[in-house]
Amino acid sequence: MIHTPYLLFLGDAPDSLAAKVAQGIKDWRPENSVGQLRLQGCKADLGLTDMTLAEAKAAGAKTLVIGVANRGGVISPSWKAVLIEALEMGYDLASGLHNLLRDEPDLVAAAEAAGATLHDVRVPSVDYPIANGIKRTGKRCLAVGTDCSVGKMYTGLAMDAAAQKMGVKSTFRPTGQTGILITGQGVPLDAVVADFMAGAVEYLTPDNDDDHWDMIEGQGSLFHVSYSGVTMALIHGGQPDAIVLCHEPTREHMRGLPTYSLPTLEALRDMALPLAKVANPDCKIIGISINTQHMSEEEAIVYLKEVEDRMGLPTVDPYRQGAERLVEALAVI
Amino acid sequence: MIHTPYLLFLGDAPDSLAAKVAQGIKDWRPENSVGQLRLQGCKADLGLTDMTLAEAKAAGAKTLVIGVANRGGVISPSWKAVLIEALEMGYDLASGLHNLLRDEPDLVAAAEAAGATLHDVRVPSVDYPIANGIKRTGKRCLAVGTDCSVGKMYTGLAMDAAAQKMGVKSTFRPTGQTGILITGQGVPLDAVVADFMAGAVEYLTPDNDDDHWDMIEGQGSLFHVSYSGVTMALIHGGQPDAIVLCHEPTREHMRGLPTYSLPTLEALRDMALPLAKVANPDCKIIGISINTQHMSEEEAIVYLKEVEDRMGLPTVDPYRQGAERLVEALAVI
Repeated sequence: MIHTPYLLFLGDAPDSLAAKVAQGIKDWRPENSVGQLRLQGCKADLGLTDMTLAEAKAAGAKTLVIGVANRGGVISPSWKAVLIEALEMGYDLASGLHNLLRDEPDLVAAAEAAGATLHDVRVPSVDYPIANGIKRTGKRCLAVGTDCSVGKMYTGLAMDAAAQKMGVKSTFRPTGQTGILITGQGVPLDAVVADFMAGAVEYLTPDNDDDHWDMIEGQGSLFHVSYSGVTMALIHGGQPDAIVLCHEPTREHMRGLPTYSLPTLEALRDMALPLAKVANPDCKIIGISINTQHMSEEEAIVYLKEVEDRMGLPTVDPYRQGAERLVEALAVI
Repeated sequence: MIHTPYLLFLGDAPDSLAAKVAQGIKDWRPENSVGQLRLQGCKADLGLTDMTLAEAKAAGAKTLVIGVANRGGVISPSWKAVLIEALEMGYDLASGLHNLLRDEPDLVAAAEAAGATLHDVRVPSVDYPIANGIKRTGKRCLAVGTDCSVGKMYTGLAMDAAAQKMGVKSTFRPTGQTGILITGQGVPLDAVVADFMAGAVEYLTPDNDDDHWDMIEGQGSLFHVSYSGVTMALIHGGQPDAIVLCHEPTREHMRGLPTYSLPTLEALRDMALPLAKVANPDCKIIGISINTQHMSEEEAIVYLKEVEDRMGLPTVDPYRQGAERLVEALAVI
């Protein structure tokens, strides 16, 4: 659990895209962000107040979050002075980079001296149990995709946000580093040891109120041969009551696998539902989330209607339209 | 890769079952076993020559394999003197216990002094790649089960042995610690980090001769919610050309999951094949392996015929009948 609120460190981000983790935090948890800290040459701007470490500290910030990724996911030498100063001032540090904070001796020394914590959200900090498959109280919704990176995290966050607005009890449950930084907790599922994957998902989504929904972030795809085992563990460990199918219609092949074509939404439905019913015989597919970012507004509307008619399920792009219809569809459970 | 041949250490095994790893090595790779080493009170006996460390060394043994598991999978203090003496004499040590050799400072010190290697086969020793899904040359057969521990390793070993006898090129590819100790190499798949599971299976089963079969040891089950992610990674990383369904007909519930009943062989077939076709569209289910150890010979024969008629696939218990019919069935690929 990472202490909030954050000061968002954008470093010397070469463009907005490099700061997409910080952007996600600002978009989804504005209350977690007191300001942004930019170094000379930074080309990203979240529209938050620029603050020094001291100013943000005075405004209540507890953790400096590295919200920027440079090439190779490393901790840039040019960031070091700021990071060490932050630790000395009593900030914790949080990072989702491949290059771990804990592998930098100067950061470790500064953190120890200050009694501060280094959060590397890419690696597990918990010894997860082996899954026991016992039915848990409360309800769970899982986003499963035709491919990686088709909008599963976005769908989960958007459904959680819509649920909050609609007065439906809900918690977003992140399973990847960006989601973990956004909410301050979660499980970095792709870094968990195989035997404990499903148990980690059970740990992430414990017993809850009968009318409470966990919106579980999906990972990978049953059709993506590199990561399908992670998806499988989410389907069985998450024992979802509801599944939302996620798709990006303009993609020409599976991400990173040029010889693999994307499955249809029908094929995804027919594969995911029987597998989900192993852990939860009452599981239903309740809606479809389409990432239409590469389509015009008009194309998107035509496509969404076509899919909705064909599949007989509420079909939305949560970015363009919000996720209210998906949350409404949970009522069938 | 563990150097063979072995001296098999049975320690103070309280019964034969405690020495089942050693038994597996002796049964499947007799040429790897020069003898057995038993401590006072040992109740197991493989029927191999009892040897001292010096005698086995003279007979060519290169590695002392801990072929016994005591309660808790720990390294017993009573074994230590022998293990340290073995290291001092130039043996490598190999173990599949939870309690790692490398976590015992006295063993580490003795190994370093002697230039010997400690093999903990329960943990990966390789940085496996992320799976790339590219079609490999050669052929692969994977055992998939209705449950854990239904005879998938046995099926793979028996098919490999039958193939060798029949002049079919074949290699058994272990994915668990017992199989790794038996053959001296393999991937401890349940201990691999999630993102690299399928890549580890690709690594284990590389390009090969067009008429060569990898007999891949299965793990878990698509229907076992604790471990299904590992099974999924085998199906996609292994890109099998042939699948053998494995089943134990007397089991009353999924292993360790009292509220989960076993799937039918039909359900396993219908779940596994579409998933396998994602990675290898030509994959076929070629036969069925039944573990009839809890049935009489008569019951077994009736049951095997019933399954064969119902499923339309060669159905054998490889322990009672050998695996020749399963290897013959590979000819359809």
